[in-house]
Amino acid sequence: MIDQKEITLPRFKRGYHIITNNILNKIGKLPEKGLINIFIKHTSAALTINENADPSVTIDFERFMNHLIPDGDKLYSHTMEGTDDMAAHIKSSTFGQSLTIPITNHQLNLGIWQGIYLCEFRNNGGHRKLVVTVYN
Amino acid sequence: MIDQKEITLPRFKRGYHIITNNILNKIGKLPEKGLINIFIKHTSAALTINENADPSVTIDFERFMNHLIPDGDKLYSHTMEGTDDMAAHIKSSTFGQSLTIPITNHQLNLGIWQGIYLCEFRNNGGHRKLVVTVYN
Amino acid sequence: MIDQKEITLPRFKRGYHIITNNILNKIGKLPEKGLINIFIKHTSAALTINENADPSVTIDFERFMNHLIPDGDKLYSHTMEGTDDMAAHIKSSTFGQSLTIPITNHQLNLGIWQGIYLCEFRNNGGHRKLVVTVYN
Repeated sequence: MIDQKEITLPRFKRGYHIITNNILNKIGKLPEKGLINIFIKHTSAALTINENADPSVTIDFERFMNHLIPDGDKLYSHTMEGTDDMAAHIKSSTFGQSLTIPITNHQLNLGIWQGIYLCEFRNNGGHRKLVVTVYN
Repeated sequence: MIDQKEITLPRFKRGYHIITNNILNKIGKLPEKGLINIFIKHTSAALTINENADPSVTIDFERFMNHLIPDGDKLYSHTMEGTDDMAAHIKSSTFGQSLTIPITNHQLNLGIWQGIYLCEFRNNGGHRKLVVTVYN
Repeated sequence: MIDQKEITLPRFKRGYHIITNNILNKIGKLPEKGLINIFIKHTSAALTINENADPSVTIDFERFMNHLIPDGDKLYSHTMEGTDDMAAHIKSSTFGQSLTIPITNHQLNLGIWQGIYLCEFRNNGGHRKLVVTVYN
């Protein structure tokens, strides 16, 4: 059985944000056993899983990734949409737009330290749309 | 229900290529609701989702990723298959070989700017094979 | 039909390790056709697919990724868990924690050179837990 829902997230500022509860609060009771796929319909943001405890992890992601894949790099020719745009596209493909997570005992079977991150790579990304698909 | 098909792509030159229609043209009518998984059976190419509009995005991916993960880096010991080989392996794992995308109303539920990219990291990658699995 | 199993891996040292058989040996007969999802319940390790033949590939992954995302980088503020911790988090999201692979003719439909890698980014990662979900 497939259950599917589109979710519009609130605006998040540029950076890495834990949205596990934003998702769980919008979907109904999970099946006993199955898989959930969460897909972000954008090319300048991403979804990933990382530490849900110490906020310094999200800060360091922002700092380090801006250093690794810099805004306004001289190699970019796609510059019309702003200095943050091409860097956002590359980061989006590096982390990915689609997460598949097991469901066990009616819950996401995440590790104790795992949370779902929205990675917002634009300075003004606006409302991001997700498609959540649960199958069992 | 699971529907599965193996697709052989035409040869693409090194770089990033939008293959959304190459895939859609080879598979039948999609179910009303479900998920599609597209898997590339190679370790020196990848699949990702990114902008489907301005061709400069694909050019910048090639330029920037060649700078980030260079051919023939002095750290590589796996050099027998050419200077582009080890870089191709690392890029392949960075972007990934498997995409899962929601299907809604008999269509891929991609964002308006999203297209599926074949990332060809070898100078002569040849024909790449995909496995497409649709489930609903 | 969904079949799900939790697997505890043996301890692996820091680096990249082919675990295709560690997984296959722990799960039963695969269905004729379907998909398998393998999920790692950690934020300082990852799963990826890469070359299963020449061991120099796994060595070069370790060397190059340590250069690209270094331990103890001066940009990190999350340093309390050791110099390898924050780098491990970033690598974990770069490669990802979830793999979806097609099943065809009761086997993983991997390319001939593809193997499943555990990427152990910590100096002492301990036993890592996977959730394997098979659906058909």
